[in-house]
Amino acid sequence: MAAAAPVSPLAPKSFAKLPPVEGVRLAAGAAGIRYKGRTDVLLAVFDKGATVAGVFTTSKCPSAPVDWCRENLQRGRARALVVNSGNANAFTGQAGREAAELTAKLAARAVGADEEEIFLASTGVIGEPLDATKFEGVLDKLAAKAKPDGWLDAACAIMTTDTFPKVATATAMIDGVAVTINGMAKGAGMIAPNMATMLSYVFTDAAISAEALQKLLSKAVKGTFNSVTVDSDTSTSDTLMLFATGAAEGRGQKKAKKAGGKSLRDFAEKLESVLLDLAQQVARDGEGARKFIEVRVTGAENDKAAKKIAFSIANSPLVKTAAAGEDANWGRVVMAVGKAGEKADRDLLSVWFGDVRVAHHGRRDPDYEEAAASAVMKQDKIVIRADLGLAKGAATVWTCDLTKEYVAINGDYRS
Amino acid sequence: MAAAAPVSPLAPKSFAKLPPVEGVRLAAGAAGIRYKGRTDVLLAVFDKGATVAGVFTTSKCPSAPVDWCRENLQRGRARALVVNSGNANAFTGQAGREAAELTAKLAARAVGADEEEIFLASTGVIGEPLDATKFEGVLDKLAAKAKPDGWLDAACAIMTTDTFPKVATATAMIDGVAVTINGMAKGAGMIAPNMATMLSYVFTDAAISAEALQKLLSKAVKGTFNSVTVDSDTSTSDTLMLFATGAAEGRGQKKAKKAGGKSLRDFAEKLESVLLDLAQQVARDGEGARKFIEVRVTGAENDKAAKKIAFSIANSPLVKTAAAGEDANWGRVVMAVGKAGEKADRDLLSVWFGDVRVAHHGRRDPDYEEAAASAVMKQDKIVIRADLGLAKGAATVWTCDLTKEYVAINGDYRS
Repeated sequence: MAAAAPVSPLAPKSFAKLPPVEGVRLAAGAAGIRYKGRTDVLLAVFDKGATVAGVFTTSKCPSAPVDWCRENLQRGRARALVVNSGNANAFTGQAGREAAELTAKLAARAVGADEEEIFLASTGVIGEPLDATKFEGVLDKLAAKAKPDGWLDAACAIMTTDTFPKVATATAMIDGVAVTINGMAKGAGMIAPNMATMLSYVFTDAAISAEALQKLLSKAVKGTFNSVTVDSDTSTSDTLMLFATGAAEGRGQKKAKKAGGKSLRDFAEKLESVLLDLAQQVARDGEGARKFIEVRVTGAENDKAAKKIAFSIANSPLVKTAAAGEDANWGRVVMAVGKAGEKADRDLLSVWFGDVRVAHHGRRDPDYEEAAASAVMKQDKIVIRADLGLAKGAATVWTCDLTKEYVAINGDYRS
Repeated sequence: MAAAAPVSPLAPKSFAKLPPVEGVRLAAGAAGIRYKGRTDVLLAVFDKGATVAGVFTTSKCPSAPVDWCRENLQRGRARALVVNSGNANAFTGQAGREAAELTAKLAARAVGADEEEIFLASTGVIGEPLDATKFEGVLDKLAAKAKPDGWLDAACAIMTTDTFPKVATATAMIDGVAVTINGMAKGAGMIAPNMATMLSYVFTDAAISAEALQKLLSKAVKGTFNSVTVDSDTSTSDTLMLFATGAAEGRGQKKAKKAGGKSLRDFAEKLESVLLDLAQQVARDGEGARKFIEVRVTGAENDKAAKKIAFSIANSPLVKTAAAGEDANWGRVVMAVGKAGEKADRDLLSVWFGDVRVAHHGRRDPDYEEAAASAVMKQDKIVIRADLGLAKGAATVWTCDLTKEYVAINGDYRS
């Protein structure tokens, strides 16, 4: 089991200290779903309720909890969140729907809420039936002991092949009132763009309507979670949710009903910074990752084309293995630009590794020195830049390298 | 250098014996482009000319030889083919165009033809200038010594990280006259669908107009080379060409001018079988391959959707690493179906490994036994089948597993 793998060398040197978010209590426990000797279930309780927003996998085969959340999200109101690791409750048919219902029922009873106010997520193996009776009793205990702190413990409970917990925090000002934004995420594998990747939960005490919250989240996800890839594989369970308890109303914050206004400008910015921090941590903890890679594309026909080209580079197994081998193999970057299907002119294209321009206007840069490019490749973080020379389209995405450890972890995940 | 890697365990037990094709002479030599102690240049001579058809990479950054061939193909007439390994002459700017021109000039002189009748290909590292002066003298000698046999030597000369030469042959009947179809291919890495993948050359003594030849080739490529992937990466140099010397006219075959007629039915069928054989050999020799994987999708909305879903499965690093680990991880097949973006209904989906149905109608098959599925995964060839249960769309594609050796080979290719 890969949970015992050594911590990624790209892990942050220390974890952010997350302050309490007024209106949120947390507890982590062990339900014995799959893992032994570790926590595998997280309960977040919103005693006075919270508005809620979410974005989910674009998979046509979504998990039962994703179906459940999509349904309940229409009401925009949350009282608790239950996340388990070790079993994805995906592709589990009618039994899966029943397992989700039972989990929600147990959680609703534990916190004294309606089932429609419970949000769920499951992460782990696909296709194995989830025995939700294991939550019986466990959720009651967690509801009783849940506290405003313990964010790192909570982030640990939702890990699968992650090698470190992922948390981030920021303070934002709304109408002169300071509000907190705390977030956590899990990632590692089956991580790909074009949806709300992975599991990530963000909590704030700000008072914001569900409608405004959804707009803020949908906008912030584009340049953050939707700009990250580990292996181009889109999970059945990807979920990003944002809960706002509204407790800041008690400190004078007027409830924000619309997303576009000036009062939420700082909040939107800080929300995006928290999501970006979490998304980059997910890439840094990609399965087997030894290099954190930032791909910047400029000069493309438009931003959408730039993003497609950036992902073509970031998802190329040949670019990723070259990074793993510390090989400044820019020919593969050219290949990935060429295969993206977007407008490109070979003779206008330039490529950089870090600050070293290795290719210029359709050929090797005459001033390029292999030693300088190799030095860039030896760093933990590698910036690959491609300029198309066509127009002003730009995009930046993040990924990690493809190593033998990725193959080892994924050749042996179920056993 | 990966050329010294052990032969793929998926290599054919013996190589097909290719008979001469009347009107074709071959020779392989060593120009010292990159490799030492091996042949690296192939010359095929058509003394009385040949009609020619070709399909090329869809890359927006094609190599100089691809540009050259596209230009000359408009005339539909060939006198010689030159292929070198070790350097792709791709992304080499004006110098690359000049290298292609010089190569064609030297070949034209060697065989007594016009430059416009010379076809070129280069395979190997991208972005390094190709020193075509190295062909000076070499091509003259090859033209003089070229013989009707030596097909296996020819196939060896165009290898890069291939671990075995790829050849195939068939005999077809046109109007009661037997004609030969001989083909060779090189593959290994940077192999992906939606174009004429890799380098492959097919030769026949049939008398067929260039226009008909092009139609036959474009049709045959769909279910063969365009249904194979090693690593989802599309090369800058992919080239598939078909040369017809027309020598069978001397044995009474009436020159075929249209592709659709009854007289070419057997030829079209045999051409497709040769291409399929070569394409599958390419997948069997994918870099680091230990498993040959056939992905069959049925019940999709239409054939195009089926193919997209099949490639989503075949290109998924998680499916491929599971195969490498002999893990019957069908949840990842479900994931890959879900992410393909085509119509799918989780609750109608069924998945098989070999003959073992592991998932049925949206959940694990109640009768499924892990041991039976594991036995399938231990085979050299694994058939993965997904039935969408929607309509009659079907497609089959081929790939290989993703192993630590792929990462090792590609982390260290240039050095």
